[in-house]
Amino acid sequence: MRILLTICYDGTDFCGYQKQPNKRTVEEVLNNAIYSLTGEKVKSVASGRTDSGVHAIAQKVHFDTNSTIPPQNFAFALNSILPADVKVVSSKKVGDDFNARYSAKKKTYKYSCYVADFENPLYNRYKTLINKTPDINLMKKCANIITGVHDFKCFLASGSSVKNTVRQIYSIKITKKSNVIDFEVCGNGFLYNMVRIIVGTLISVGYNKITLDSVKDALNNGNRLLVGKTMPSKGLVLKSVSYK
Amino acid sequence: MRILLTICYDGTDFCGYQKQPNKRTVEEVLNNAIYSLTGEKVKSVASGRTDSGVHAIAQKVHFDTNSTIPPQNFAFALNSILPADVKVVSSKKVGDDFNARYSAKKKTYKYSCYVADFENPLYNRYKTLINKTPDINLMKKCANIITGVHDFKCFLASGSSVKNTVRQIYSIKITKKSNVIDFEVCGNGFLYNMVRIIVGTLISVGYNKITLDSVKDALNNGNRLLVGKTMPSKGLVLKSVSYK
Repeated sequence: MRILLTICYDGTDFCGYQKQPNKRTVEEVLNNAIYSLTGEKVKSVASGRTDSGVHAIAQKVHFDTNSTIPPQNFAFALNSILPADVKVVSSKKVGDDFNARYSAKKKTYKYSCYVADFENPLYNRYKTLINKTPDINLMKKCANIITGVHDFKCFLASGSSVKNTVRQIYSIKITKKSNVIDFEVCGNGFLYNMVRIIVGTLISVGYNKITLDSVKDALNNGNRLLVGKTMPSKGLVLKSVSYK
Repeated sequence: MRILLTICYDGTDFCGYQKQPNKRTVEEVLNNAIYSLTGEKVKSVASGRTDSGVHAIAQKVHFDTNSTIPPQNFAFALNSILPADVKVVSSKKVGDDFNARYSAKKKTYKYSCYVADFENPLYNRYKTLINKTPDINLMKKCANIITGVHDFKCFLASGSSVKNTVRQIYSIKITKKSNVIDFEVCGNGFLYNMVRIIVGTLISVGYNKITLDSVKDALNNGNRLLVGKTMPSKGLVLKSVSYK
């Protein structure tokens, strides 16, 4: 049977989701826990990889098993094996045609920043320090430009070999509460580093360092140099993945 | 001159605030940083100690120095020396009669819990898992009983040698947002473990394990056995200290 897990992790001490030789990754830690539980060397499939340092509130992962453990009991059983920084939120049986990666229709990421003079020890793991408050209205205007169906080549990190760079951004919500600014980006899929570059661009626009016209040009001509820098990974969390 | 620091720390990797032999404490790390900066072995005074694992958003600490560094520059200078889990938020000169401990008029602590079936890796450091939702209204009734001037002997951890156990609680605010329940407790001073025992009592009342009458009796007769357990330290943060 095919099991779908919803998993939560603190990415700080992982070298990203995807398995790599001699690195501690979420995929390997999870596969090892499944092996300890079932004795099966499974090939689990996540909705997508997350980079080193990126967190997840509700990453989705499926795997196939011949185990007789009731599907909903995988959560409890795996959590007794998993380390404190990755846990299963819930587990259930899904159809054999369900694929955590290819069936995904919508993903939501949240990026969190705070404005301060100095690093805040309580924000070290989950929020990125910025030194001044960007213009929120200007960032919202830029978010409206980025929202929609576009070729997001300009928001793609160099070195990526992906061919189709057209994606749809459904919404970008920007909220400011006290000195914390959150960006919630929802789309049908994301390129490598795309959310972090979008947030870097919004902030640069909010600082009047990049114009709205430059962002429009970048979306038209795919020029990475016209948009902002890649924000640090620690402020990013995969919030949800939808399948319908 | 006397310098007052506002400091923020993540208590997870500290054995509390107060200096102890062969333990990593906030006091020692801070005093060492001041020594690196000024060459002076100062005796810094905090508004109060915090236990192992307890955090602070705005702990207050004073110390005396003969340094010619402008008072407001201590923050920046010390932050270049301090580790990532303790930082100075601000620094200023205060009068020689000011005492971070004895001049304190009001302290506010926040305790944070979440209701879930499993530990949440993203809450590991700052919130305590509870397994079901306590009755919020019942907890608020209990909070009203605890608020005010009382002999809080029943809320004092055993082993403490403090003589005067009368304190005033100004307010206890309980808020629930999604599965997170926060307790904000404001008072003129707190006994050892008092906030953590108050929260443990409120939750036990909310679970119908302790009656409101028992809490009233405990406040009258000082019986520690009538109130709740001490909650884990990681959910507790010293939020503010007021001096006027």
